[in-house]
Amino acid sequence: MARSDAVRNREKVRQAAETVLSEQGLSARMDEIARRAGVGVGTVYRHFATKEALYQAIVTARVDVLLAEADQLRESGDPRTAFFTFFTRIVADATGKKAYTDALRTAGIDLKSEQAAQAARMRQAIDDLLRNAQQTAAVRRDAALPEILALLRGATMAAETGDYPAAVLDRSLQLLLDGLRPHADI
Amino acid sequence: MARSDAVRNREKVRQAAETVLSEQGLSARMDEIARRAGVGVGTVYRHFATKEALYQAIVTARVDVLLAEADQLRESGDPRTAFFTFFTRIVADATGKKAYTDALRTAGIDLKSEQAAQAARMRQAIDDLLRNAQQTAAVRRDAALPEILALLRGATMAAETGDYPAAVLDRSLQLLLDGLRPHADI
Repeated sequence: MARSDAVRNREKVRQAAETVLSEQGLSARMDEIARRAGVGVGTVYRHFATKEALYQAIVTARVDVLLAEADQLRESGDPRTAFFTFFTRIVADATGKKAYTDALRTAGIDLKSEQAAQAARMRQAIDDLLRNAQQTAAVRRDAALPEILALLRGATMAAETGDYPAAVLDRSLQLLLDGLRPHADI
Repeated sequence: MARSDAVRNREKVRQAAETVLSEQGLSARMDEIARRAGVGVGTVYRHFATKEALYQAIVTARVDVLLAEADQLRESGDPRTAFFTFFTRIVADATGKKAYTDALRTAGIDLKSEQAAQAARMRQAIDDLLRNAQQTAAVRRDAALPEILALLRGATMAAETGDYPAAVLDRSLQLLLDGLRPHADI
C-alpha cells in the first residue's frame, strides 16, 4: 500500500473513532469503529494497537485544532474577542463528549509525555490570550491563569456531563465570563 | 441491644464511612470502615447491607446538613450574604471529595427516589435564596435557576476532582460569583 493510502486510512479510522466514541463513550468497540471507517478491523489495529492509542490520537488531533485556532485568534488583533472566543470554543468542544475530554481538562495531570507537552502548549496559549486581553483591559487584571484554568475546567466538565440544554449552557457561560470582565464592561 | 445503642452505632458507622470514603473513594473496604467505627463488620452490614446503601446514607445526611444551613441563611434577613454563602458552602462541601458528590451535583438525574426528593428540596432551597437575592438586587435578575445550577455543578466538579490549591479555588469562585452580581456591585 502506498504511504499516502496508509495516512489516509489512519485519518479515516481516527475520524470514525471520534464519532463512535462521542456516541458510545469508551465502551465503543474496535469492530464498530472499523465498520464506520469502511476498513477491516485489522487496519484499525495496524494503526492503533490499543483503544488507548486511538483515544490519545483523537485527543492530540483535537488539541492541535484548538491550538491552531488560538494562534489565529491571537493574530486577529482583537484581544478581547480572542480570549472570550477561545474560552467559549474549548467549552463547546467538550460539550456532550464524555469520552475524550479528560486529557484536555486535566491539563497536565496524568498525561502521557506527548500529551503533557501539548497540555503545556494549551496552557501557554490560554496564558497568552489572557495577558493580551488584560493589557487592553478586556479582562480583569486580578484574574490569574490558575483560576482561569479552574473555571475552564469546571465549565468543560459541566458541559461534558451535564446534559444541559444549549441555551442554559450558553447563558451560564456568559455569566461566568462576565465575572472576568472589568466593572465598566458589564 | 437497646434501640438507642443501635441508632448510635449506625451513626458511628456512617461517620467513619464518610471519613474513609473521602480518603479512599469508593474502593474503601467495609472492614476498614468497621475498624474506624470501632464496631464489628457484622454491625456495619446489619445497618447497611451494601456499600451503596451506606453511600446513600452519607449523601442523605450531608444534604440534610446543607438544607438546614439553607433554612438558617434564608431566615438570616440578609439575602445577599445568604445566596453567596450557600453557593460557596456547596462548593466547599464538594472539595476534595470524589466519592459522594455525584448525587449532589446531578441534582435529580439518576437518583433513587428518596434522593430525588432531596435533590428537589435542594433545587428549591437554591431557587428561594436566588429569588430573595434578586429581589434585593444582590444578584442579576437575568440569571435564572438552570444556569445557576449549571455553574454550581461546574464549580463543584472542579473543586471535587481538580486538586487545586485552596487559594486558587477561592479566587476562581469569587470570579464566578462576580459574574452573578449586578454591574454596580462589582
